[in-house]
Amino acid sequence: MNTFGHLFRITTWGESHGGAVGVVIDGCPPQIDVDISVIQFELDRRRPGQSHLTTPRQESDVVEILSGVFEGKTLGTPISMLVWNKDARPAAYEHLKDLYRPSHADFTYQKKYGIRNWQGGGRASARETIGRVAAGAIAKQILRENAETEVLAYVKQVHTLAAEVDTGTVTLEQIEASPVRCPDPIAGPKMAERIDQARRDQDSLGGIIESVTRNVPVGLGEPVFDKLKADLAKAMMSLPATMGFQIGSGFEGITMTGSEHNDPFYMEKYNESERVRTRTNNSGGTQGGISNGENIVFQVAFKPTATIGKPQQTVDMHGNEVTLEASGRHDPCVLVRAPAIVEAMAALVLTDHLLRQRSKS
Amino acid sequence: MNTFGHLFRITTWGESHGGAVGVVIDGCPPQIDVDISVIQFELDRRRPGQSHLTTPRQESDVVEILSGVFEGKTLGTPISMLVWNKDARPAAYEHLKDLYRPSHADFTYQKKYGIRNWQGGGRASARETIGRVAAGAIAKQILRENAETEVLAYVKQVHTLAAEVDTGTVTLEQIEASPVRCPDPIAGPKMAERIDQARRDQDSLGGIIESVTRNVPVGLGEPVFDKLKADLAKAMMSLPATMGFQIGSGFEGITMTGSEHNDPFYMEKYNESERVRTRTNNSGGTQGGISNGENIVFQVAFKPTATIGKPQQTVDMHGNEVTLEASGRHDPCVLVRAPAIVEAMAALVLTDHLLRQRSKS
Amino acid sequence: MNTFGHLFRITTWGESHGGAVGVVIDGCPPQIDVDISVIQFELDRRRPGQSHLTTPRQESDVVEILSGVFEGKTLGTPISMLVWNKDARPAAYEHLKDLYRPSHADFTYQKKYGIRNWQGGGRASARETIGRVAAGAIAKQILRENAETEVLAYVKQVHTLAAEVDTGTVTLEQIEASPVRCPDPIAGPKMAERIDQARRDQDSLGGIIESVTRNVPVGLGEPVFDKLKADLAKAMMSLPATMGFQIGSGFEGITMTGSEHNDPFYMEKYNESERVRTRTNNSGGTQGGISNGENIVFQVAFKPTATIGKPQQTVDMHGNEVTLEASGRHDPCVLVRAPAIVEAMAALVLTDHLLRQRSKS
Amino acid sequence: MNTFGHLFRITTWGESHGGAVGVVIDGCPPQIDVDISVIQFELDRRRPGQSHLTTPRQESDVVEILSGVFEGKTLGTPISMLVWNKDARPAAYEHLKDLYRPSHADFTYQKKYGIRNWQGGGRASARETIGRVAAGAIAKQILRENAETEVLAYVKQVHTLAAEVDTGTVTLEQIEASPVRCPDPIAGPKMAERIDQARRDQDSLGGIIESVTRNVPVGLGEPVFDKLKADLAKAMMSLPATMGFQIGSGFEGITMTGSEHNDPFYMEKYNESERVRTRTNNSGGTQGGISNGENIVFQVAFKPTATIGKPQQTVDMHGNEVTLEASGRHDPCVLVRAPAIVEAMAALVLTDHLLRQRSKS
Repeated sequence: MNTFGHLFRITTWGESHGGAVGVVIDGCPPQIDVDISVIQFELDRRRPGQSHLTTPRQESDVVEILSGVFEGKTLGTPISMLVWNKDARPAAYEHLKDLYRPSHADFTYQKKYGIRNWQGGGRASARETIGRVAAGAIAKQILRENAETEVLAYVKQVHTLAAEVDTGTVTLEQIEASPVRCPDPIAGPKMAERIDQARRDQDSLGGIIESVTRNVPVGLGEPVFDKLKADLAKAMMSLPATMGFQIGSGFEGITMTGSEHNDPFYMEKYNESERVRTRTNNSGGTQGGISNGENIVFQVAFKPTATIGKPQQTVDMHGNEVTLEASGRHDPCVLVRAPAIVEAMAALVLTDHLLRQRSKS
Repeated sequence: MNTFGHLFRITTWGESHGGAVGVVIDGCPPQIDVDISVIQFELDRRRPGQSHLTTPRQESDVVEILSGVFEGKTLGTPISMLVWNKDARPAAYEHLKDLYRPSHADFTYQKKYGIRNWQGGGRASARETIGRVAAGAIAKQILRENAETEVLAYVKQVHTLAAEVDTGTVTLEQIEASPVRCPDPIAGPKMAERIDQARRDQDSLGGIIESVTRNVPVGLGEPVFDKLKADLAKAMMSLPATMGFQIGSGFEGITMTGSEHNDPFYMEKYNESERVRTRTNNSGGTQGGISNGENIVFQVAFKPTATIGKPQQTVDMHGNEVTLEASGRHDPCVLVRAPAIVEAMAALVLTDHLLRQRSKS
Repeated sequence: MNTFGHLFRITTWGESHGGAVGVVIDGCPPQIDVDISVIQFELDRRRPGQSHLTTPRQESDVVEILSGVFEGKTLGTPISMLVWNKDARPAAYEHLKDLYRPSHADFTYQKKYGIRNWQGGGRASARETIGRVAAGAIAKQILRENAETEVLAYVKQVHTLAAEVDTGTVTLEQIEASPVRCPDPIAGPKMAERIDQARRDQDSLGGIIESVTRNVPVGLGEPVFDKLKADLAKAMMSLPATMGFQIGSGFEGITMTGSEHNDPFYMEKYNESERVRTRTNNSGGTQGGISNGENIVFQVAFKPTATIGKPQQTVDMHGNEVTLEASGRHDPCVLVRAPAIVEAMAALVLTDHLLRQRSKS
Repeated sequence: MNTFGHLFRITTWGESHGGAVGVVIDGCPPQIDVDISVIQFELDRRRPGQSHLTTPRQESDVVEILSGVFEGKTLGTPISMLVWNKDARPAAYEHLKDLYRPSHADFTYQKKYGIRNWQGGGRASARETIGRVAAGAIAKQILRENAETEVLAYVKQVHTLAAEVDTGTVTLEQIEASPVRCPDPIAGPKMAERIDQARRDQDSLGGIIESVTRNVPVGLGEPVFDKLKADLAKAMMSLPATMGFQIGSGFEGITMTGSEHNDPFYMEKYNESERVRTRTNNSGGTQGGISNGENIVFQVAFKPTATIGKPQQTVDMHGNEVTLEASGRHDPCVLVRAPAIVEAMAALVLTDHLLRQRSKS
């Protein structure tokens, strides 16, 4: 349904063109510092209209906290946050009222529910992710306070253009310095060009977001079903437009043999003591579904945005085959806004598992 | 934890070398036909020791039904099934007692729980999947009774060897006729050779399982978090050794543009009436996280088996760096046994969503 | 936590003196008629300040629907509703900042969370029930549309004054016509007098709410843990101030023998057909935790309101024993406002179980 | 369904006359001592046939642990336990096959599921509680290790005979020394007589179980829905034959005024320090749904056993009104076996909340 998490739990609500969108966080530990400007910063990263590369929809997306925070700290009670929908223009969607846009959710929502809010994408809109990002900002704070754990995500590939990124050293500043949120100074500008071309072509592009989490506590993950890799996969595949998830060596890893792929253990000096490390990280930071302390590295494939400017063949609700001239405002590459969303979802999963692990001690 | 599903729910239990392994199914509708030989058939497909290509562990794995079935039909009460562990040989694991085998779960379980059953893989063993497969057999029966829905899975790639398979026509018989469960008559035998070579090399191989589900009801999937693709991803990534999940065009699809990738709708004559179809299926059978009636097609990456015969560098529980001569009985390619498991998990997800959708009508 | 229900699920949020209080309903079936005036009617029944018998707090408590409803019908997506807090007067609570009011939740919240919103009762306030009542109004509509099922509740006892009420015939109109919401024309006015006396005494009273549900479908309830009686008990005992729950013959029934207590079955002519009925209803409408079609009758004990005007002995956060002169605005008998809340919770439980039962067919 | 608990979770399975009954515990912390003889002791307290006062069914009810325990300690993995059904005598139930026994679950199960195991009470049998009691034994061990928390329950009333019991001092030895498990040396023998008379009359009796928990940590309970009192109520009302639950002053408390009922706080010297206590305990150990450190005291009403020896009027599945001569083996007062069950359920609730509270710190 619309709730995610077991102990640190979010419930998102809101259609793209209803009154508002929001989230309720339940199970947040008490006495966590909440800085609303940090939440707003994350929302601004996700927001359309940040540059000429993204959708022209203009929304300030100002978050309000309605409960659960008192004098700058969490109370341990539900945290309710919302963002009002200000740019609702139902008339802009009037011509889509009876149509099923290709590779959108119009058809499946209509069949499932027998009704849909045709004024925009409804719950299937990327706007639904606002609540996730707001909640993720608080999850990030918990991870930071707990063990300086840091979750990052960035554009790894656009269309056929792949970037080189060092997962061990990449920083938020490097990511945000790039208009396409690709920290590779060579690939980034090429991606921007490619996206501009797609816009001119009335077409759209997909790509890959890569995420790295550093300073991960050992022991997060609840086998056998709530393995860390399983919950991360679910989190990512619950996002709009995602088509694939891979961790560590992923789909590439199958061309290795076991002796090449296994990550040898060794002892590393750490502070005054020693700790167990692996020399390679083909496992991507989890073994047996539990974090092993190495960086968690995963990738998510986003399909090219379904909304394009070119004419397309489709059908309407009455069974007529028709041509759709343009399927809505045209954002050629939503990928650019996706890092904040991927980071938020990863932070939510890790925080939930952190609390679950604490309950065992 | 160890429960999966919302309305059709399974709880698995059992270590690889404890007394038994089993499953409790909760929420199974009443009056479903249960044929224990069908359940046994699925378990036999999963079982090691079926051919020289798989592990030599010899277990009959005979399933017993302890509750929830009466005179051949489900009662609507919990169905408890178990398989006794007969091949427990703790002595064979004695030398591994203090070691962390590379890319196994020994280290993470020890750190998470402070204790582990070192006599085999514990819960991280592939033996844990027995309960999933037994439950999946009943889920398949529900899907069959409901709409002739059929879930299949097969080996799509081993190491670098990829197969050609027509998702629209492949049959269970074709899959089972191949010792490596690859229905491609050309690639299959090559895969068998490659696996035999790996065995001789004391090494192991990974690969890809592909799954197709046909005759899928429209409307399954519960946005925004329990999207069908999200629950399938979680199901697959909760399996041992899985490193990636992709649906439809997956990671490949990002090299297409939106106009190439979108699946155009059209009207198809169907019985006396018409229905909405898509000309291509890059979406893999879901849009907006809800099934659209097209075949559900996804792929799962399995890493090369962590257990190999070659010596490896590792550490022990006392912080010593040591050489592990052989990490256990050697099954060079567990992939061959994976189709039954992948099918079971897909059937469990679909059945859960079928019941969830029914509650809305 | 703050979520209740399995398929029809509510999440409430909001402190008594924070920005707002609200609810998110998840899993509501699509295409249900939503009339905001009906929701407002239920909130008005719950609201303080309705008569001189209730608390003088003046709040308009106007509900807003922010999502999930489109053109007067539910979309099947989350329904978000909120009520702004307008009467927040933190200064009125300043003197209570460091105190633990007797039989309030100040002490336990402080110990559990290490922090609390001392400006009112926080989550422990009766104001938290606003979200429950708003959601219950929609649940009632589903029950009505499904089978004309009607949930009623009324004041059965205040202090030592018990009412005579016929569960088979009592109506909402009779309940609402009484300022104390007791449909017994003799006991009702006496209760009003007794409450007025308690106000003059700076004291408070408790009592019993009785609820009857008529036209209940047979088969609701999910043994063994989610029995209907178990979920009703949890729902009622999750309310502030409740100290007991009993169904059917309840605690009285133990003075009967089995032969007196058992409800004999008989066949009743029903429309053109027959149906199974019981001659007595000591079972209160459920057997084996499943509804049997008879009226569901239960009672809930509410303790006397903890807030009183008389001085009381207590302690403060610093370990000093102190006298509390008056513990806040004084509502001598919250019972009068409780029927709407009890009805809402019963409706939520029944609706959840209705959807669960549908998933089996 | 058949799962109870959020972090410490049990799933029970098994019909009264199927192959076996059992339980899977999920979420049990690792490294807890497990002594199978302690589990067996609890099962023996619950078992029929302990004295002439209970049902003559003879079952050894020997528990087996199939997983989750290694060398006497929990692994943190699911603990599967079962007890085989040895006394299955389907022929004894043949005459009940088509009948609906009054105040049993035959009718409602048949209507809900369209099928039932008529060989005994199925899931509605008291035999279902075996799994709960076995799991409760482990929960008790966790509570004991954590803070010497002790859960006790005993017979407080049989029919009209009430006992005097001091909740502060009553011991397990006193309870077990009484054949009716009533620690009052005067009321106990009278209850035994009354039960014997009921047996001779072919009739049955109900009564009240009272439970006290001592050494309760402050802070257990998760408002607003998972209040401690709410989860205790659900646990108790999920048991067969329960008709009511009350905590602290319960239904009696409503005849007090607020000034009489409120529990005044005071400071008590405790070890080298001080702690907050209440002078009275009308709250029953929780305030705002959270434990306050006082003893948790609650009562549960059990109706007279539905199975009696006297003839009763009823109907059969074909709509005929018939006389049922005797409805099965006759146990005139199941109450005698209920203390072990009530203790188990209370321990399960408290353990679950203990783990939930730990996750916050």
